[in-house]
Amino acid sequence: MAKISSTDLLEQLKWRYAVKEFDSTKKIPSELVSALEDSLVLTPSSFGLQPWKFFIIEDQGIKDQLPAISWNQPQPKDCSHMVALAIKRNFAEADVARFIDCLAASRGVTVESLEGYKGFAGGFVAQGVSEGWIEHWSTHQVYIAIGQLMSSAALLGIDACPMEGIQADKYDEVLGLDGTEYHVVLGCALGYRSENDKYATMNKARFPKEEIVERR
Amino acid sequence: MAKISSTDLLEQLKWRYAVKEFDSTKKIPSELVSALEDSLVLTPSSFGLQPWKFFIIEDQGIKDQLPAISWNQPQPKDCSHMVALAIKRNFAEADVARFIDCLAASRGVTVESLEGYKGFAGGFVAQGVSEGWIEHWSTHQVYIAIGQLMSSAALLGIDACPMEGIQADKYDEVLGLDGTEYHVVLGCALGYRSENDKYATMNKARFPKEEIVERR
Repeated sequence: MAKISSTDLLEQLKWRYAVKEFDSTKKIPSELVSALEDSLVLTPSSFGLQPWKFFIIEDQGIKDQLPAISWNQPQPKDCSHMVALAIKRNFAEADVARFIDCLAASRGVTVESLEGYKGFAGGFVAQGVSEGWIEHWSTHQVYIAIGQLMSSAALLGIDACPMEGIQADKYDEVLGLDGTEYHVVLGCALGYRSENDKYATMNKARFPKEEIVERR
Repeated sequence: MAKISSTDLLEQLKWRYAVKEFDSTKKIPSELVSALEDSLVLTPSSFGLQPWKFFIIEDQGIKDQLPAISWNQPQPKDCSHMVALAIKRNFAEADVARFIDCLAASRGVTVESLEGYKGFAGGFVAQGVSEGWIEHWSTHQVYIAIGQLMSSAALLGIDACPMEGIQADKYDEVLGLDGTEYHVVLGCALGYRSENDKYATMNKARFPKEEIVERR
Protein backbone atom coordinates (compact mmCIF):
# COMPACT_ATOMS: atom_id res chain seq x y z
CA MET A 1 0.00 0.00 0.00
CA ALA A 2 1.13 3.48 -0.87
CA LYS A 3 -1.56 5.30 1.04
CA ILE A 4 -1.05 8.93 1.96
CA SER A 5 -1.94 11.07 4.96
CA SER A 6 -5.15 13.06 5.13
CA THR A 7 -3.04 16.22 5.46
CA ASP A 8 -1.32 15.54 2.13
CA LEU A 9 -4.58 14.60 0.41
CA LEU A 10 -6.33 17.76 1.53
CA GLU A 11 -3.34 19.94 0.74
CA GLN A 12 -3.48 18.79 -2.87
CA LEU A 13 -7.28 19.04 -3.14
CA LYS A 14 -7.04 22.62 -1.84
CA TRP A 15 -4.17 23.40 -4.21
CA ARG A 16 -6.41 22.45 -7.12
CA TYR A 17 -8.57 25.13 -8.77
CA ALA A 18 -10.17 25.61 -12.16
CA VAL A 19 -7.30 27.15 -14.10
CA LYS A 20 -8.26 30.20 -16.14
CA GLU A 21 -4.85 30.77 -17.73
CA PHE A 22 -2.37 28.01 -18.53
CA ASP A 23 1.34 28.49 -19.17
CA SER A 24 1.43 27.30 -22.76
CA THR A 25 5.19 26.72 -22.64
CA LYS A 26 4.93 24.00 -20.00
CA LYS A 27 4.18 20.45 -21.09
CA ILE A 28 3.21 17.51 -18.89
CA PRO A 29 6.02 14.89 -18.92
CA SER A 30 4.96 11.84 -20.88
CA GLU A 31 5.20 9.51 -17.86
CA LEU A 32 2.58 11.65 -16.08
CA VAL A 33 0.33 11.86 -19.15
CA SER A 34 0.42 8.09 -19.23
CA ALA A 35 -0.45 7.91 -15.50
CA LEU A 36 -3.45 10.21 -16.01
CA GLU A 37 -4.59 7.99 -18.86
CA ASP A 38 -4.26 5.00 -16.53
CA SER A 39 -6.31 6.79 -13.89
CA LEU A 40 -9.05 7.26 -16.52
CA VAL A 41 -8.88 3.58 -17.46
CA LEU A 42 -9.11 2.63 -13.76
CA THR A 43 -12.21 4.77 -13.12
CA PRO A 44 -14.98 2.77 -11.43
CA SER A 45 -18.22 2.47 -13.41
CA SER A 46 -21.66 1.01 -12.89
CA PHE A 47 -21.42 -2.80 -13.25
CA GLY A 48 -17.87 -2.16 -14.44
CA LEU A 49 -19.23 -1.54 -17.93
CA GLN A 50 -17.03 1.45 -18.93
CA PRO A 51 -19.39 3.02 -21.49
CA TRP A 52 -16.76 5.55 -22.59
CA LYS A 53 -13.68 6.58 -24.49
CA PHE A 54 -11.14 9.31 -23.73
CA PHE A 55 -9.40 11.43 -26.36
CA ILE A 56 -6.12 13.06 -25.31
CA ILE A 57 -5.41 15.98 -27.61
CA GLU A 58 -1.81 17.16 -27.81
CA ASP A 59 -1.68 18.33 -31.44
CA GLN A 60 -1.52 22.13 -31.40
CA GLY A 61 -3.37 22.35 -34.72
CA ILE A 62 -6.37 20.58 -33.18
CA LYS A 63 -6.12 22.46 -29.87
CA ASP A 64 -6.17 25.78 -31.73
CA GLN A 65 -9.60 24.93 -33.14
CA LEU A 66 -11.14 24.33 -29.73
CA PRO A 67 -11.58 27.78 -28.10
CA ALA A 68 -14.03 28.77 -30.87
CA ILE A 69 -16.24 25.84 -29.88
CA SER A 70 -15.69 26.32 -26.13
CA TRP A 71 -17.29 29.77 -25.76
CA ASN A 72 -13.94 31.36 -26.58
CA GLN A 73 -12.25 30.09 -23.46
CA PRO A 74 -8.49 29.87 -24.15
CA GLN A 75 -7.70 26.85 -21.93
CA PRO A 76 -8.06 24.14 -24.64
CA LYS A 77 -5.35 25.76 -26.78
CA ASP A 78 -3.00 26.93 -24.00
CA CYS A 79 -3.05 23.79 -21.88
CA SER A 80 -0.56 20.97 -22.35
CA HIS A 81 -3.09 18.20 -23.03
CA MET A 82 -6.79 18.61 -23.62
CA VAL A 83 -8.97 15.64 -22.71
CA ALA A 84 -12.32 15.09 -24.44
CA LEU A 85 -14.41 12.58 -22.49
CA ALA A 86 -16.90 10.71 -24.65
CA ILE A 87 -19.73 8.27 -24.10
CA LYS A 88 -20.19 5.24 -26.30
CA ARG A 89 -23.44 5.78 -28.18
CA ASN A 90 -26.06 3.04 -28.56
CA PHE A 91 -24.65 1.14 -25.62
CA ALA A 92 -26.49 -2.17 -25.65
CA GLU A 93 -26.39 -5.81 -24.66
CA ALA A 94 -23.59 -6.52 -27.16
CA ASP A 95 -21.40 -4.18 -25.10
CA VAL A 96 -22.29 -6.10 -21.98
CA ALA A 97 -21.22 -9.31 -23.71
CA ARG A 98 -17.93 -7.63 -24.70
CA PHE A 99 -17.39 -6.66 -21.06
CA ILE A 100 -18.21 -10.17 -19.82
CA ASP A 101 -15.56 -11.56 -22.18
CA CYS A 102 -13.08 -9.08 -20.71
CA LEU A 103 -14.13 -9.98 -17.15
CA ALA A 104 -13.79 -13.72 -17.83
CA ALA A 105 -10.34 -13.25 -19.36
CA SER A 106 -9.05 -11.09 -16.50
CA ARG A 107 -10.36 -13.48 -13.83
CA GLY A 108 -9.34 -16.59 -15.72
CA VAL A 109 -12.84 -18.06 -15.59
CA THR A 110 -15.30 -19.15 -18.26
CA VAL A 111 -17.91 -16.84 -19.74
CA GLU A 112 -20.51 -19.42 -18.72
CA SER A 113 -19.62 -19.00 -15.04
CA LEU A 114 -20.57 -15.32 -15.36
CA GLU A 115 -24.01 -15.93 -16.89
CA GLY A 116 -25.79 -14.61 -13.79
CA TYR A 117 -23.91 -11.34 -13.81
CA LYS A 118 -24.33 -11.06 -17.56
CA GLY A 119 -28.08 -11.47 -17.24
CA PHE A 120 -28.27 -8.91 -14.44
CA ALA A 121 -26.15 -6.24 -16.15
CA GLY A 122 -27.68 -7.03 -19.54
CA GLY A 123 -31.19 -6.64 -18.16
CA PHE A 124 -30.25 -3.26 -16.69
CA VAL A 125 -28.83 -2.04 -19.99
CA ALA A 126 -31.77 -3.39 -22.00
CA GLN A 127 -34.13 -1.51 -19.70
CA GLY A 128 -32.09 1.68 -20.15
CA VAL A 129 -32.27 1.30 -23.90
CA SER A 130 -36.01 0.62 -23.99
CA GLU A 131 -36.81 3.40 -21.50
CA GLY A 132 -34.51 5.87 -23.24
CA TRP A 133 -32.18 6.72 -20.35
CA ILE A 134 -29.11 4.73 -21.33
CA GLU A 135 -27.17 7.79 -22.55
CA HIS A 136 -27.96 9.62 -19.29
CA TRP A 137 -26.51 6.63 -17.44
CA SER A 138 -23.41 6.60 -19.68
CA THR A 139 -22.97 10.33 -19.14
CA HIS A 140 -23.16 9.83 -15.37
CA GLN A 141 -20.28 7.38 -15.59
CA VAL A 142 -18.20 9.93 -17.51
CA TYR A 143 -18.72 12.41 -14.67
CA ILE A 144 -17.19 9.84 -12.29
CA ALA A 145 -14.23 9.72 -14.67
CA ILE A 146 -13.74 13.48 -14.67
CA GLY A 147 -13.97 13.45 -10.86
CA GLN A 148 -11.24 10.83 -10.61
CA LEU A 149 -9.20 12.61 -13.31
CA MET A 150 -9.28 15.94 -11.48
CA SER A 151 -8.29 14.47 -8.12
CA SER A 152 -5.58 12.33 -9.75
CA ALA A 153 -4.15 15.40 -11.52
CA ALA A 154 -4.17 17.39 -8.26
CA LEU A 155 -2.30 14.60 -6.48
CA LEU A 156 0.34 14.54 -9.20
CA GLY A 157 0.71 18.33 -9.03
CA ILE A 158 -0.86 18.84 -12.45
CA ASP A 159 -3.33 21.64 -13.03
CA ALA A 160 -6.71 21.19 -14.65
CA CYS A 161 -9.76 23.02 -15.83
CA PRO A 162 -12.96 21.00 -16.19
CA MET A 163 -15.03 22.27 -19.10
CA GLU A 164 -18.69 21.37 -19.04
CA GLY A 165 -19.68 24.26 -21.28
CA ILE A 166 -18.27 23.09 -24.56
CA GLN A 167 -20.08 22.64 -27.87
CA ALA A 168 -19.94 18.89 -27.73
CA ASP A 169 -21.31 18.30 -31.25
CA LYS A 170 -18.57 20.50 -32.68
CA TYR A 171 -15.96 18.62 -30.66
CA ASP A 172 -17.25 15.45 -32.34
CA GLU A 173 -16.75 17.15 -35.70
CA VAL A 174 -13.22 18.37 -34.99
CA LEU A 175 -12.20 14.96 -33.62
CA GLY A 176 -13.75 13.15 -36.57
CA LEU A 177 -16.28 11.35 -34.38
CA ASP A 178 -19.34 12.10 -36.51
CA GLY A 179 -20.83 8.83 -37.64
CA THR A 180 -18.79 6.87 -35.11
CA GLU A 181 -20.08 5.32 -31.91
CA TYR A 182 -18.53 7.99 -29.68
CA HIS A 183 -19.90 11.36 -28.60
CA VAL A 184 -18.01 13.92 -26.53
CA VAL A 185 -19.83 15.07 -23.39
CA LEU A 186 -17.16 16.86 -21.35
CA GLY A 187 -13.72 18.41 -21.62
CA CYS A 188 -10.85 18.77 -19.21
CA ALA A 189 -7.77 20.88 -19.92
CA LEU A 190 -4.58 19.64 -18.23
CA GLY A 191 -1.25 21.38 -17.81
CA TYR A 192 0.35 24.02 -15.62
CA ARG A 193 -1.08 27.30 -14.33
CA SER A 194 0.36 30.56 -15.65
CA GLU A 195 2.10 32.81 -13.16
CA ASN A 196 -0.31 35.50 -14.33
CA ASP A 197 -3.46 33.61 -13.40
CA LYS A 198 -4.80 35.73 -10.57
CA TYR A 199 -7.39 33.05 -9.72
CA ALA A 200 -4.60 30.75 -8.51
CA THR A 201 -4.18 32.60 -5.23
CA MET A 202 -7.82 33.37 -4.48
CA ASN A 203 -9.53 31.60 -1.62
CA LYS A 204 -11.77 28.69 -2.53
CA ALA A 205 -15.46 29.46 -2.18
CA ARG A 206 -17.25 26.58 -0.50
CA PHE A 207 -20.44 26.58 1.53
CA PRO A 208 -19.65 25.93 5.21
CA LYS A 209 -19.07 22.25 5.93
CA GLU A 210 -21.88 22.25 8.50
CA GLU A 211 -24.35 23.20 5.74
CA ILE A 212 -23.09 20.65 3.21
CA VAL A 213 -22.35 17.63 5.38
CA GLU A 214 -24.68 16.14 7.96
CA ARG A 215 -23.95 13.19 10.22
CA ARG A 216 -26.71 10.75 11.06
CA MET B 1 2.91 20.97 -2.31
CA ALA B 2 2.39 17.44 -1.12
CA LYS B 3 2.17 15.85 -4.54
CA ILE B 4 2.75 12.14 -4.90
CA SER B 5 4.39 9.94 -7.50
CA SER B 6 2.45 8.37 -10.33
CA THR B 7 3.52 4.95 -9.03
CA ASP B 8 1.88 5.62 -5.65
CA LEU B 9 -1.25 7.08 -7.22
CA LEU B 10 -1.74 4.10 -9.51
CA GLU B 11 -0.95 1.61 -6.76
CA GLN B 12 -3.83 3.01 -4.71
CA LEU B 13 -6.25 3.26 -7.65
CA LYS B 14 -5.49 -0.39 -8.46
CA TRP B 15 -5.88 -1.37 -4.79
CA ARG B 16 -9.41 0.06 -4.87
CA TYR B 17 -12.30 -2.22 -5.83
CA ALA B 18 -16.04 -2.27 -5.19
CA VAL B 19 -16.17 -4.05 -1.84
CA LYS B 20 -18.75 -6.82 -1.63
CA GLU B 21 -18.18 -7.70 2.03
CA PHE B 22 -17.07 -5.22 4.67
CA ASP B 23 -15.52 -6.14 8.03
CA SER B 24 -18.23 -4.73 10.27
CA THR B 25 -15.91 -4.65 13.29
CA LYS B 26 -13.57 -2.09 11.72
CA LYS B 27 -14.43 1.58 11.97
CA ILE B 28 -12.83 4.47 10.12
CA PRO B 29 -10.91 6.71 12.58
CA SER B 30 -12.71 10.00 13.07
CA GLU B 31 -9.84 12.07 11.66
CA LEU B 32 -10.16 10.17 8.36
CA VAL B 33 -13.96 10.46 8.30
CA SER B 34 -13.49 14.18 8.67
CA ALA B 35 -10.94 14.22 5.82
CA LEU B 36 -13.35 12.36 3.53
CA GLU B 37 -16.05 14.90 4.40
CA ASP B 38 -13.58 17.66 3.52
CA SER B 39 -12.84 15.98 0.20
CA LEU B 40 -16.60 16.03 -0.52
CA VAL B 41 -16.79 19.71 0.40
CA LEU B 42 -13.80 20.44 -1.87
CA THR B 43 -15.32 18.68 -4.90
CA PRO B 44 -15.28 20.90 -8.00
CA SER B 45 -18.68 21.73 -9.46
CA SER B 46 -20.04 23.59 -12.45
CA PHE B 47 -19.70 27.36 -11.81
CA GLY B 48 -18.72 26.35 -8.25
CA LEU B 49 -22.41 26.13 -7.38
CA GLN B 50 -22.35 22.97 -5.21
CA PRO B 51 -25.98 21.88 -5.73
CA TRP B 52 -25.69 19.14 -3.16
CA LYS B 53 -25.61 17.83 0.39
CA PHE B 54 -23.90 14.77 1.83
CA PHE B 55 -25.30 12.60 4.63
CA ILE B 56 -22.80 10.51 6.57
CA ILE B 57 -24.60 7.67 8.30
CA GLU B 58 -22.86 6.06 11.26
CA ASP B 59 -25.89 5.13 13.38
CA GLN B 60 -26.26 1.35 13.25
CA GLY B 61 -30.03 1.58 13.66
CA ILE B 62 -30.27 3.61 10.46
CA LYS B 63 -27.70 1.52 8.62
CA ASP B 64 -29.65 -1.65 9.43
CA GLN B 65 -32.64 -0.28 7.53
CA LEU B 66 -30.66 0.27 4.33
CA PRO B 67 -30.04 -3.19 2.80
CA ALA B 68 -33.81 -3.66 2.36
CA ILE B 69 -33.89 -0.54 0.19
CA SER B 70 -30.59 -1.35 -1.56
CA TRP B 71 -31.66 -4.57 -3.32
CA ASN B 72 -30.61 -6.51 -0.24
CA GLN B 73 -26.95 -5.69 -0.59
CA PRO B 74 -25.35 -5.90 2.86
CA GLN B 75 -22.70 -3.17 2.40
CA PRO B 76 -24.75 -0.27 3.88
CA LYS B 77 -25.15 -2.07 7.22
CA ASP B 78 -21.71 -3.70 7.43
CA CYS B 79 -19.62 -0.73 6.37
CA SER B 80 -18.23 1.76 8.84
CA HIS B 81 -19.86 4.87 7.38
CA MET B 82 -22.51 4.99 4.67
CA VAL B 83 -22.64 8.15 2.58
CA ALA B 84 -25.87 9.23 0.91
CA LEU B 85 -25.19 11.85 -1.75
CA ALA B 86 -28.11 14.17 -2.40
CA ILE B 87 -28.97 16.92 -4.85
CA LYS B 88 -30.63 20.11 -3.74
CA ARG B 89 -34.06 20.12 -5.32
CA ASN B 90 -35.50 23.18 -7.05
CA PHE B 91 -32.09 24.68 -7.50
CA ALA B 92 -32.73 28.21 -8.75
CA GLU B 93 -31.41 31.73 -9.01
CA ALA B 94 -31.74 32.24 -5.24
CA ASP B 95 -29.12 29.51 -4.80
CA VAL B 96 -26.85 31.30 -7.23
CA ALA B 97 -27.23 34.47 -5.13
CA ARG B 98 -26.37 32.46 -2.01
CA PHE B 99 -23.23 31.18 -3.74
CA ILE B 100 -22.24 34.67 -4.90
CA ASP B 101 -22.48 35.85 -1.27
CA CYS B 102 -20.18 32.98 -0.28
CA LEU B 103 -17.78 33.78 -3.14
CA ALA B 104 -17.65 37.48 -2.23
CA ALA B 105 -16.98 36.68 1.42
CA SER B 106 -14.22 34.17 0.67
CA ARG B 107 -12.48 36.52 -1.77
CA GLY B 108 -13.02 39.62 0.35
CA VAL B 109 -14.74 41.49 -2.48
CA THR B 110 -18.17 43.07 -2.86
CA VAL B 111 -21.16 41.21 -4.27
CA GLU B 112 -21.47 44.03 -6.82
CA SER B 113 -18.04 43.24 -8.25
CA LEU B 114 -19.33 39.76 -9.06
CA GLU B 115 -22.44 40.91 -10.92
CA GLY B 116 -21.12 39.64 -14.26
CA TYR B 117 -20.48 36.15 -12.93
CA LYS B 118 -23.79 36.18 -11.10
CA GLY B 119 -25.63 37.04 -14.32
CA PHE B 120 -23.80 34.34 -16.26
CA ALA B 121 -24.32 31.55 -13.72
CA GLY B 122 -27.84 32.76 -12.94
CA GLY B 123 -28.77 32.72 -16.61
CA PHE B 124 -27.48 29.18 -16.93
CA VAL B 125 -29.50 27.99 -13.94
CA ALA B 126 -32.63 29.86 -15.07
CA GLN B 127 -32.34 28.13 -18.43
CA GLY B 128 -31.96 24.75 -16.73
CA VAL B 129 -35.06 25.39 -14.67
CA SER B 130 -37.20 26.55 -17.61
CA GLU B 131 -35.98 23.75 -19.88
CA GLY B 132 -36.39 21.12 -17.18
CA TRP B 133 -32.82 19.80 -17.02
CA ILE B 134 -31.62 21.43 -13.83
CA GLU B 135 -31.89 18.23 -11.75
CA HIS B 136 -29.94 16.32 -14.40
CA TRP B 137 -27.23 18.96 -14.10
CA SER B 138 -27.26 18.73 -10.30
CA THR B 139 -27.06 14.96 -10.49
CA HIS B 140 -24.05 15.22 -12.81
CA GLN B 141 -22.26 17.29 -10.19
CA VAL B 142 -22.96 14.64 -7.55
CA TYR B 143 -21.27 12.06 -9.78
CA ILE B 144 -18.15 14.24 -9.76
CA ALA B 145 -18.37 14.14 -5.97
CA ILE B 146 -18.57 10.36 -5.81
CA GLY B 147 -15.60 10.18 -8.21
CA GLN B 148 -13.51 12.41 -5.97
CA LEU B 149 -14.76 10.55 -2.86
CA MET B 150 -13.75 7.14 -4.21
CA SER B 151 -10.28 8.27 -5.27
CA SER B 152 -9.77 10.12 -1.97
CA ALA B 153 -10.77 7.04 0.01
CA ALA B 154 -8.41 4.86 -2.04
CA LEU B 155 -5.53 7.24 -1.37
CA LEU B 156 -6.23 7.15 2.36
CA GLY B 157 -6.36 3.33 2.31
CA ILE B 158 -10.09 3.26 2.99
CA ASP B 159 -12.33 0.85 1.13
CA ALA B 160 -15.51 1.83 -0.63
CA CYS B 161 -18.45 0.48 -2.54
CA PRO B 162 -20.31 2.92 -4.80
CA MET B 163 -24.02 2.12 -4.88
CA GLU B 164 -25.95 3.47 -7.81
CA GLY B 165 -28.69 0.89 -7.50
CA ILE B 166 -30.40 2.09 -4.36
CA GLN B 167 -34.05 2.98 -3.88
CA ALA B 168 -33.39 6.68 -3.61
CA ASP B 169 -36.94 7.67 -2.63
CA LYS B 170 -36.82 5.23 0.28
CA TYR B 171 -33.46 6.61 1.35
CA ASP B 172 -35.14 10.03 1.48
CA GLU B 173 -37.81 8.51 3.73
CA VAL B 174 -35.37 6.81 6.10
CA LEU B 175 -33.24 9.95 6.35
CA GLY B 176 -36.29 12.14 6.92
CA LEU B 177 -35.72 14.10 3.73
CA ASP B 178 -39.29 13.88 2.42
CA GLY B 179 -40.64 17.38 2.07
CA THR B 180 -37.16 18.90 2.40
CA GLU B 181 -35.12 20.39 -0.41
CA TYR B 182 -32.76 17.40 -0.61
CA HIS B 183 -33.10 14.17 -2.57
CA VAL B 184 -30.67 11.25 -2.41
CA VAL B 185 -29.31 10.14 -5.79
CA LEU B 186 -26.36 7.90 -4.92
CA GLY B 187 -24.83 5.94 -2.08
CA CYS B 188 -21.28 5.05 -1.18
CA ALA B 189 -20.36 2.63 1.59
CA LEU B 190 -17.00 3.32 3.29
CA GLY B 191 -14.98 1.14 5.62
CA TYR B 192 -12.64 -1.82 5.44
CA ARG B 193 -12.83 -4.97 3.33
CA SER B 194 -13.49 -8.29 5.04
CA GLU B 195 -10.77 -10.90 4.86
CA ASN B 196 -13.44 -13.18 3.41
CA ASP B 197 -14.25 -10.97 0.44
CA LYS B 198 -13.01 -13.07 -2.43
CA TYR B 199 -13.44 -10.14 -4.83
CA ALA B 200 -10.56 -8.31 -3.14
CA THR B 201 -7.93 -10.41 -4.83
CA MET B 202 -9.50 -10.77 -8.25
CA ASN B 203 -7.92 -8.99 -11.20
CA LYS B 204 -9.55 -5.77 -12.29
CA ALA B 205 -11.47 -6.07 -15.55
CA ARG B 206 -10.76 -3.09 -17.77
CA PHE B 207 -10.93 -2.83 -21.54
CA PRO B 208 -7.42 -2.52 -22.98
CA LYS B 209 -6.02 1.00 -22.69
CA GLU B 210 -5.53 1.19 -26.47
CA GLU B 211 -9.30 0.74 -26.93
CA ILE B 212 -10.31 3.28 -24.27
CA VAL B 213 -7.74 6.04 -24.73
CA GLU B 214 -6.80 7.63 -28.03
CA ARG B 215 -4.16 10.32 -28.54
CA ARG B 216 -4.75 13.03 -31.11
